[in-house]
Amino acid sequence: MSLAIEQAKLAAMEGEVPVGALALWEDGRVVGLGRNRREGDKCALCHGEIEAIAHACGTLHGWRLHKCTLYVTLEPCPMCAGAIMNARIKRVVYGAKDPKAGAYGSLFHLNDLAVNHKPEIVGGVMEQECAALLKDFFASLREKRTGG
Amino acid sequence: MSLAIEQAKLAAMEGEVPVGALALWEDGRVVGLGRNRREGDKCALCHGEIEAIAHACGTLHGWRLHKCTLYVTLEPCPMCAGAIMNARIKRVVYGAKDPKAGAYGSLFHLNDLAVNHKPEIVGGVMEQECAALLKDFFASLREKRTGG
Repeated sequence: MSLAIEQAKLAAMEGEVPVGALALWEDGRVVGLGRNRREGDKCALCHGEIEAIAHACGTLHGWRLHKCTLYVTLEPCPMCAGAIMNARIKRVVYGAKDPKAGAYGSLFHLNDLAVNHKPEIVGGVMEQECAALLKDFFASLREKRTGG
Repeated sequence: MSLAIEQAKLAAMEGEVPVGALALWEDGRVVGLGRNRREGDKCALCHGEIEAIAHACGTLHGWRLHKCTLYVTLEPCPMCAGAIMNARIKRVVYGAKDPKAGAYGSLFHLNDLAVNHKPEIVGGVMEQECAALLKDFFASLREKRTGG
């Protein structure tokens, strides 16, 4: 999760909402890295998880990531949870909850539906560090906007 | 929808499950095209809608597709419905229902949740043509597999 947090910090430095992700193969290799780049890349799809999954599919030359654990600093949104399911990811470890858009218990839980693949979900890992990144980012944004 | 069907036919010719998509701006311009390329691109994210959204974000140099209608031959899955929400797409017109994975009424309906953007959804447009493409594709696949 520390490496995912590093990715989130990079995103913040680029002026993006700080969310970072990392895909780990079962042998311990990092096969995918990603961070939020929505504003810079001007693309609605550019969440950290999507980037990490695309990177991992490229590294492994295949779309089945059934031996991957995905680490991400924020609870995945419906798009990313759907991508995790489509990629057959084995396990998801996330940091902070996303009360507005989280698809693993906050907004709803994708695994509660009759889906064809249900990854193991572990939430709240390094939660305070992950949440603090977001809190600090939005506080600094408000400060800039109010000129204070 | 005819253009989305053309994209689906191209996918079938490439040995992919035939699903095609198209993004239309409100002035009538086609700003994004996409088709399923999961096997060829070896990527779990490569659904037609994702490709059409990425293409449209590129064409329009921005991630907000709030004046776009997305046409797609099959009811979007959770990943694609989440992407449609994240891209703020105005309207989704789809062909065939996807009883196993559809996120607009089949598996669940994303618009029934407390999400921050709810596109208008129109299903069943040229449904028979869209469904026939899939049916023919899987029939031909079974035929090849059984050598018959």
